[in-house]
Amino acid sequence: MGMLAARPLANLLATLMDRRAFLGRADGALDIEAACRTLLAERDETTGMHLAASILAGYSTLGPEALLAFFRFLNDDLDIDAARIADLAGAYRDAPEGGGYGALRSATEPVRQRLFRRLNEAPGATAAIVRMREDLLRLLPDHPALARTDHDLRQLLGSWFNRGFLVLQRITWDSPASILEKIIAYEAVHEIDTWDDLRRRLQPEDRRCFAFFHPSVPSEPLIFVEVALTQGTPGSIQALLSDKREALPEAEADTAVFYSISNCQPGLAGVSFGNSLIKQVAHDLSRDLPNLRTFVTLSPIPGLAAWLAARGGAPAPSEPARLLPLAASYLLDARDGRGRPLDPVARFHLGNGAQVHALHAGADLSAKGLAASSGVMVNYLYDLGRISQNAAGFADKGLIAAAPAVRALARKA
Amino acid sequence: MGMLAARPLANLLATLMDRRAFLGRADGALDIEAACRTLLAERDETTGMHLAASILAGYSTLGPEALLAFFRFLNDDLDIDAARIADLAGAYRDAPEGGGYGALRSATEPVRQRLFRRLNEAPGATAAIVRMREDLLRLLPDHPALARTDHDLRQLLGSWFNRGFLVLQRITWDSPASILEKIIAYEAVHEIDTWDDLRRRLQPEDRRCFAFFHPSVPSEPLIFVEVALTQGTPGSIQALLSDKREALPEAEADTAVFYSISNCQPGLAGVSFGNSLIKQVAHDLSRDLPNLRTFVTLSPIPGLAAWLAARGGAPAPSEPARLLPLAASYLLDARDGRGRPLDPVARFHLGNGAQVHALHAGADLSAKGLAASSGVMVNYLYDLGRISQNAAGFADKGLIAAAPAVRALARKA
Amino acid sequence: MGMLAARPLANLLATLMDRRAFLGRADGALDIEAACRTLLAERDETTGMHLAASILAGYSTLGPEALLAFFRFLNDDLDIDAARIADLAGAYRDAPEGGGYGALRSATEPVRQRLFRRLNEAPGATAAIVRMREDLLRLLPDHPALARTDHDLRQLLGSWFNRGFLVLQRITWDSPASILEKIIAYEAVHEIDTWDDLRRRLQPEDRRCFAFFHPSVPSEPLIFVEVALTQGTPGSIQALLSDKREALPEAEADTAVFYSISNCQPGLAGVSFGNSLIKQVAHDLSRDLPNLRTFVTLSPIPGLAAWLAARGGAPAPSEPARLLPLAASYLLDARDGRGRPLDPVARFHLGNGAQVHALHAGADLSAKGLAASSGVMVNYLYDLGRISQNAAGFADKGLIAAAPAVRALARKA
Amino acid sequence: MGMLAARPLANLLATLMDRRAFLGRADGALDIEAACRTLLAERDETTGMHLAASILAGYSTLGPEALLAFFRFLNDDLDIDAARIADLAGAYRDAPEGGGYGALRSATEPVRQRLFRRLNEAPGATAAIVRMREDLLRLLPDHPALARTDHDLRQLLGSWFNRGFLVLQRITWDSPASILEKIIAYEAVHEIDTWDDLRRRLQPEDRRCFAFFHPSVPSEPLIFVEVALTQGTPGSIQALLSDKREALPEAEADTAVFYSISNCQPGLAGVSFGNSLIKQVAHDLSRDLPNLRTFVTLSPIPGLAAWLAARGGAPAPSEPARLLPLAASYLLDARDGRGRPLDPVARFHLGNGAQVHALHAGADLSAKGLAASSGVMVNYLYDLGRISQNAAGFADKGLIAAAPAVRALARKA
Repeated sequence: MGMLAARPLANLLATLMDRRAFLGRADGALDIEAACRTLLAERDETTGMHLAASILAGYSTLGPEALLAFFRFLNDDLDIDAARIADLAGAYRDAPEGGGYGALRSATEPVRQRLFRRLNEAPGATAAIVRMREDLLRLLPDHPALARTDHDLRQLLGSWFNRGFLVLQRITWDSPASILEKIIAYEAVHEIDTWDDLRRRLQPEDRRCFAFFHPSVPSEPLIFVEVALTQGTPGSIQALLSDKREALPEAEADTAVFYSISNCQPGLAGVSFGNSLIKQVAHDLSRDLPNLRTFVTLSPIPGLAAWLAARGGAPAPSEPARLLPLAASYLLDARDGRGRPLDPVARFHLGNGAQVHALHAGADLSAKGLAASSGVMVNYLYDLGRISQNAAGFADKGLIAAAPAVRALARKA
Repeated sequence: MGMLAARPLANLLATLMDRRAFLGRADGALDIEAACRTLLAERDETTGMHLAASILAGYSTLGPEALLAFFRFLNDDLDIDAARIADLAGAYRDAPEGGGYGALRSATEPVRQRLFRRLNEAPGATAAIVRMREDLLRLLPDHPALARTDHDLRQLLGSWFNRGFLVLQRITWDSPASILEKIIAYEAVHEIDTWDDLRRRLQPEDRRCFAFFHPSVPSEPLIFVEVALTQGTPGSIQALLSDKREALPEAEADTAVFYSISNCQPGLAGVSFGNSLIKQVAHDLSRDLPNLRTFVTLSPIPGLAAWLAARGGAPAPSEPARLLPLAASYLLDARDGRGRPLDPVARFHLGNGAQVHALHAGADLSAKGLAASSGVMVNYLYDLGRISQNAAGFADKGLIAAAPAVRALARKA
Repeated sequence: MGMLAARPLANLLATLMDRRAFLGRADGALDIEAACRTLLAERDETTGMHLAASILAGYSTLGPEALLAFFRFLNDDLDIDAARIADLAGAYRDAPEGGGYGALRSATEPVRQRLFRRLNEAPGATAAIVRMREDLLRLLPDHPALARTDHDLRQLLGSWFNRGFLVLQRITWDSPASILEKIIAYEAVHEIDTWDDLRRRLQPEDRRCFAFFHPSVPSEPLIFVEVALTQGTPGSIQALLSDKREALPEAEADTAVFYSISNCQPGLAGVSFGNSLIKQVAHDLSRDLPNLRTFVTLSPIPGLAAWLAARGGAPAPSEPARLLPLAASYLLDARDGRGRPLDPVARFHLGNGAQVHALHAGADLSAKGLAASSGVMVNYLYDLGRISQNAAGFADKGLIAAAPAVRALARKA
Repeated sequence: MGMLAARPLANLLATLMDRRAFLGRADGALDIEAACRTLLAERDETTGMHLAASILAGYSTLGPEALLAFFRFLNDDLDIDAARIADLAGAYRDAPEGGGYGALRSATEPVRQRLFRRLNEAPGATAAIVRMREDLLRLLPDHPALARTDHDLRQLLGSWFNRGFLVLQRITWDSPASILEKIIAYEAVHEIDTWDDLRRRLQPEDRRCFAFFHPSVPSEPLIFVEVALTQGTPGSIQALLSDKREALPEAEADTAVFYSISNCQPGLAGVSFGNSLIKQVAHDLSRDLPNLRTFVTLSPIPGLAAWLAARGGAPAPSEPARLLPLAASYLLDARDGRGRPLDPVARFHLGNGAQVHALHAGADLSAKGLAASSGVMVNYLYDLGRISQNAAGFADKGLIAAAPAVRALARKA
């Protein structure tokens, strides 16, 4: 009996080449829509993985027009069949035990969602799918109909990047350079200019940096937070980041200051996990450094300057007595059209359950700090014992937790 | 301004204690249904994680009655609202661009599915949810209405255990004992009696073992396959596993024999990933050991003895000329009510795209091998170049790929 | 210009084959003495590494006679040149700044020591050299002249296995099975019967095991200690190891009991590192579990039964009032010919700076415990604040540190 | 019976404080000589480790005078006793089996060597001892009598940094930044200006970097080599390092070019391990990339410009027909006072067994390349099949292996 499986890999590649030819168009390019339909029908998982890899490779070469066409294909051709859902839902409503549940549930899953899952079987696909959503979000303002596809992608990524799958890792000067260059690239709040600058945020014993990672995208931080350990609550970012300061022995620190938090993956916008990062880090730090008693941010107030300008102009950073009451009033009283605080950073931390703790004039004298926040910064306090209650009060009734001194300031405005 | 966040962890625990008290019933136990509803409403992710952990801890202590009540709660109280889906689907059908897509899609997701996702945020929750499905599968035969919940759990686990998230790892004698004891426990085909027995399957240079793992359940193999490297295709499992044999230098092997494949997680039944394990291992082995040219199984035929008995009795293992034609006929011709091959192992490998390659009488003389397979074993050949085509032919037309010699045998029956 | 270095590895192997042929004897075997001399002269490090590997491979196949001949070759042919040393030392004594230091120091290093260093350049050689000393120690009683070679090997291994190079690692049920089987094999005090037995010593939260490793011999523990965390000082080894006991939550433990310490490498006899193992572990445990306040052993008294027999017989374990005063007297008063305590385990712990803390009758009712120790066990207390002083008193003046109650017992004998 | 070992760590520290006070001088500083003598006498290993750490900490703060005094203490006070060695050597010579071997060998070990071994027991001590030798080598030119101490340190470090203990590791862009900054700092041949520059030497698929590490100094590379994979032998370093070049697919490379090799630890000068680095890397590369057939360096000729100047001036880089014959003659014919090749890089590679393979004018147009090497570079060929023979010919008879074309060039000079 002859052995028929000689050089299996070569054969496999040949097979895939044939198949790719079959999927090719007259101009020699992969017909990506045909390939997607083939993948949806493919029964062999290994063949499917290779096909998925080809599709993702082909996707990454699409020009603007082809890209839009591809998303329209996803959005329109691979949509749900609403009429069928209506029928099946009616049947299930009338006879819940009639066995129609599976059919209804299957019908409610859009074909594109099944496609994303098959694509994800290829090695490295998860990162590619996150980039796919990044492309989609860029197209969305001009092509609002694609929102259906975005809805499905966000839901799927929300399930895959469930908090339970994320891993919190400390970033240090011993971390891989390939990770650290991403920290430099993604830092959104206080720019990192050089590797020496980065080292000053990682290496001293009074500095920490933590990021969430997903095991299937190990080389990409998802979100990271930078922390300074201090004595007392600091009121100036330049002092905090000065390259002339001396490091504080970590055992002498009583306060952890979250002075920067940056999202790294635009394709994961709206997929919530930043929510728990600060609280998880506060929890871990308080376990390792029992002397820490206070967990605060040192945050910009990015809408303040524009709000002051609209009201007739901002007092100078050197006039805290005039500036701070206005800033307090902005944070506590100014609302957007939906009744939420006007300031986006405030919305983030208040939504997390933090409270407005203290305000500092002349606290960020960088060009960006002056232009956006009139030089004012704010500490949001994470009191782990009150977070849940604050978050609920904010979400349910729009209540803003604040220290009495901040309330008193706002009343002076 | 006083620092208010002293000893955050203690406070947090106190808060949770209070909350737990609130969720408690008169008899002091956690009211798990109330806790689930609270979790669904909880806005703070950290509080949610702790609550999820409490629910999973509480779940693991439920007695039989409370367990059934809990699944009924999931199945009935946290179901979809079919009437609402019917309305929304109708509206979407009539005006697809009317913005109703998100509402429809949200309505189609059962509340229990959202609950599972929130539960998964707790550390170690994924393994607990897999065990939850294991419990459910045990209850299902007597409580078929729970199939709705099972449908949702299987779909969710299928998304989480997507092939792209799984990691193939070699199991060796250097692997953690805590993993190896699970290999011993889960081996389903040819029992591992002792640690020495296990060592003989891992340590010699002509033996391999590979398993799929999920990064969030790192201490639990999901499925594993045991491989022997041989010269030529073997025809006896006892010879293959003999403790007296000499190891073959790996460079002299031309054949990889998959002699055992075992699922480890009953709670993942129906979530397909075994499909690609053999092919992935064949791929990796052929890269590392270029002399390997043949990839076959050495498999039992567990339905053969019963089938022979129903036809009037089985020839003895010592009568291959009578026994093998019948065995070939059983594999190629015997079908179940749905037209599929009667033999479950044949269904698995043929569905994978393998072909029936050779039959051996007296190949498994263990009590189990004689009782179930009349001592006959079969090699299924994984010819990587033909797998996709075989799998499609089998799935679409029920075609069974087989070597000419096996077909000839079957014709003699 | 042609490229001359085609297939370098093949060439290298061919070269080595030639060389090996050259080193072969008429009967085809490697002439190990010629090979050693070639290695000592070889200038190319890479060639030397291959040659060293050949020699070590050849060594491992030597029969008893050839082995003895090889050690005689090391001992006699590769010795120092004492006459030359005497001359050079005289010259250096007369003119220390005359530049003769290097020559003297080189002359004082035996050629065999240089050979061991060259052998060590081969991969895995360190473990092979340790086994070489194990062989030598076995031959030594019958061939006392080989003591010179043993002196050099012990000195070299002492330098290589310097405490600063050793790594303390915790052994757990997650450790590689290949390490754990060595723990089973090497356990010298309270035999480990099965893998389940081992698991009971590793997995419960009130159990610990630590070993020293050398980075160049990562698969071989050098010495390990087993620890039980308890409330109070235990007085029975059977109770401590019972498979029916419940694990103590680690936070409730106030005492760490070192109930077994085992050397793994006979070839490292006389190379001291066990000395610091218990103290290092005590240090690390007290950092991780601040509730621990007492560090004691639960040790056999292996010379007690023989000593009692020589004095007319031992009281039964059930007669503690008669047995314990005798045991205390044995530990505190019985001395060997060199004035040291008669009991070897006592010598080890007292030399470490521990003190005799408490005695227990009926504490080891195993056959071995009754036969050697008359069932009595002793706690040696490691009071880290007194260790250095105790060790100095014992070494300098033979003082035995003991608790007052033990002294009182001994006075009753 | 009371528990006496409460808070062991606090006690231990108190004890050490007392001891340190005892070792202090009137001015409050550690008396390092007294501390060394105490360490030599200390019997408790743990106490010794703490004391060793104190000594090393104290050492690192010594000013220039105290440093010199400390080395004089090592050199003179902790020397051998030559008179005693002469006596013991005489006795051993007269009666080799008389048991005097151990005493003789012990006497030949200088007390300072024993001190270094005890110091090494402290955590991190090995790196500190390497730095100690670095200090010593700086003092040596002005204080030649300290050569005795240097002899002993070099011998000890040679034993500890034995090739068998070193680990070859690839350095990539995924390596820790803390390692990579050392690569930047230590690169001795072709300076690395920025992290981007470093990335260009690590990340492209046609670049490699390997370093030797010692397990006890894991954060310090000992020596590293940078490799470019090319088609054919390159003749210009600027072309090789250009930031505009395109990376070559690694499978298309037939040549590995060692274009830079840098020692990192001045304190390990004279401790040979660079010898085997290139050969080990060549071996590993040829295993992983079987298409590689040639292993060459692209090396500077640092003595060429000075030699040409002494002979009346160098031809311009644009005159290869005049320049290259002179360069060839310099490499093949110019000798130093001891008959060795005048060029230090040539000595290194010829001593390793490489041969002079090809010369290139205008190959290094950097300021340094022009000033030292007149812009000329040379390829040394590592033909693994000839290395041992070349190295022996060079060492024994001063033979310089060279390609015929290079010999022909030299004859034209």
